[in-house]
Amino acid sequence: MLPFILDDRLAKDTIHLLELPLCRFLLMNDRRYPWLILVPRYNDLSEIHDLRDKDQSTLISEVTAATRALEKLFQPEKINVAALGNLVSQLHIHVIARFEEDEAWPNPVWGIGKNESYSRNEAKRLVNQLTTTLLA
Amino acid sequence: MLPFILDDRLAKDTIHLLELPLCRFLLMNDRRYPWLILVPRYNDLSEIHDLRDKDQSTLISEVTAATRALEKLFQPEKINVAALGNLVSQLHIHVIARFEEDEAWPNPVWGIGKNESYSRNEAKRLVNQLTTTLLA
Repeated sequence: MLPFILDDRLAKDTIHLLELPLCRFLLMNDRRYPWLILVPRYNDLSEIHDLRDKDQSTLISEVTAATRALEKLFQPEKINVAALGNLVSQLHIHVIARFEEDEAWPNPVWGIGKNESYSRNEAKRLVNQLTTTLLA
Repeated sequence: MLPFILDDRLAKDTIHLLELPLCRFLLMNDRRYPWLILVPRYNDLSEIHDLRDKDQSTLISEVTAATRALEKLFQPEKINVAALGNLVSQLHIHVIARFEEDEAWPNPVWGIGKNESYSRNEAKRLVNQLTTTLLA
């Protein structure tokens, strides 16, 4: 089997966090929202139902882990979970902490305003907090 | 336990399809996109991780059933799956068939243009096709 290759655009837009049994966990490099992206480590998947049943169950438990970590660290108003993939076909799931005072609220975040990258120190601190919480 | 009560706005915007073990399946009354909404039949849930593990697995298998039905009937370019809930807090999952020629492509559908209701005949035919395919 070929090694897993992350889509170029996902790689460019995100910061690596860690790997759980199914997914690579990425932090979207956009300081406007605490935003994780989970990528099942298989090549050539584009839809959730391309995963076997067992992997589907693992996926939803990893989405839950992502959600709980964001809730613990940020106490958001709502979590948005989405598998869209109209632009990047590699299957990936967005898990985004939303706040009533965020830029896009109450709309979805996509296509609103411009990404704002984290500073090096912000990214380092956040990666540390998230990996610690996800592995706890 | 209180009987399940569907959120008023979801009720207003959709057409009833059927019930699978966990979710009520609704058809969004917007002829621009084949668009299902799945609502787990519990009151007072707002996040996927409010569901027990077993129900989470059922949810993803019902999402898969919705996806397969849309693929079979419409051969879309992509399926979008999302649990957002910033406006309607009752947990509900969007499963939307997307096409390169649809109004919002490649963006998500929310907040783009205006809903276009089905005619009575269109709705009747589509409800029939969808329920038949979902129950096959």
